[in-house]
Amino acid sequence: MKNIAVKITYDGSSFHGWQRQKNGISVQQTVEEALGEITGEKIAVTGCSRTDAGVHALEYVFNFKTESAVPPDRMWIALNTKLPCSSVAALGSAEVSDGFDARFCAKGKTYVYYIFSGAKRSPFLERYSWHIPRTLSLSDMQKAAKSFEGRHDFAGFVSAGGSQKTTERTVSKCEVYRLSENPDILALEITADAFLYNMVRIITGTVVYVGAGRTNASEITSIIESCDRSRAGITAPPNGLFLKKVYYENF
Amino acid sequence: MKNIAVKITYDGSSFHGWQRQKNGISVQQTVEEALGEITGEKIAVTGCSRTDAGVHALEYVFNFKTESAVPPDRMWIALNTKLPCSSVAALGSAEVSDGFDARFCAKGKTYVYYIFSGAKRSPFLERYSWHIPRTLSLSDMQKAAKSFEGRHDFAGFVSAGGSQKTTERTVSKCEVYRLSENPDILALEITADAFLYNMVRIITGTVVYVGAGRTNASEITSIIESCDRSRAGITAPPNGLFLKKVYYENF
Repeated sequence: MKNIAVKITYDGSSFHGWQRQKNGISVQQTVEEALGEITGEKIAVTGCSRTDAGVHALEYVFNFKTESAVPPDRMWIALNTKLPCSSVAALGSAEVSDGFDARFCAKGKTYVYYIFSGAKRSPFLERYSWHIPRTLSLSDMQKAAKSFEGRHDFAGFVSAGGSQKTTERTVSKCEVYRLSENPDILALEITADAFLYNMVRIITGTVVYVGAGRTNASEITSIIESCDRSRAGITAPPNGLFLKKVYYENF
Repeated sequence: MKNIAVKITYDGSSFHGWQRQKNGISVQQTVEEALGEITGEKIAVTGCSRTDAGVHALEYVFNFKTESAVPPDRMWIALNTKLPCSSVAALGSAEVSDGFDARFCAKGKTYVYYIFSGAKRSPFLERYSWHIPRTLSLSDMQKAAKSFEGRHDFAGFVSAGGSQKTTERTVSKCEVYRLSENPDILALEITADAFLYNMVRIITGTVVYVGAGRTNASEITSIIESCDRSRAGITAPPNGLFLKKVYYENF
């Protein structure tokens, strides 16, 4: 029995999230069915994260066990012949140790969230950003973002439905920058050892409140310390969120 | 009776082209129905160009006549309340002279075609570029593109189905460049007084043949002069093509 880890990328617009569910096509179901065709086995994959409907992945990792004779480092090529081109693509694969688990072995993740502040709508950005047609203060958002760095109790930045034992997390980087190729797009990029349910989207909503002048950047630290969800901003919509990178020791 | 010109942008992935047809939703039908709701009239619009299914528009112009009391320069705002956000958006509108016709008054157009040469597939680029997973020679493509500039008979660069009286066109600019934000993407940008049916896609297919080493850049001039469709390259797929700009004297 081999344990194979696979890197994929997907456009979340086409899926009802990562996790298999009854009412709608998930990424998990799509890759499990494709791997089933390739291996002739009933495949169950373990994903690195449960992304919500509409959330995208530039890089997502899952693993699965198989008796298949397909060489592990070519499994991603076989997978690409079975996946729907316009929504999900495999980027690489490798055999990993028996104990490798894409979820529990992840040492950290980076997410990026795109905010489109252009005055006019763009159908090309609609599925990939949060449209806020007003001027946002980049410098205030940058100050606010910095306040999230470090080890904090993020109990005020989680939605109901998570299954965490502790709400403490270590954010190693939280930055906001303007895209050089489109100055109307601001990106919030955040790296942590692990994330709570909707944590990035609530942090984004809070940072956007600061950018819009509704919350002062200097208040962020006390909002975090309060552990009070009602003091944080709204949960930003899913479509601006991209899982950018997952970190492992051996993959 | 007012004559109103409207600028829109649309993601061609969602439509069966610009022009109204029986089997599938077109952009024309979508805007005509939206304007019908706003004005209470049966609206017929005249578009600047017939774009094929899958072809996008960063900027597209149409005009229509109406008795509506909605101020012409606010018509685009009303239109946006009725259009499907994720596929089409209005960018502006203005009253124009009675004789203005979006198709016949266009003095020229600029198209851009995106070629994605990355080794790995990207679901985010699938609908917006032609994926050619191999190295293409940018300098050879740039040389080939230059050969299209000037006034030529483009009879070898047209698909059956066009209704032109002459196949002569003046290309004022034809350039290929690499996107700074993603070096795996090459853009072919072309401006002409008017275009023949599939002209940009056939020019792109021919320039890609040069980039791939299948045709020599120095042959392009004689291929154009031959007026022989079989000597040009293949018709590039529609999804990489974007109408970028339409030029008028008074709009």
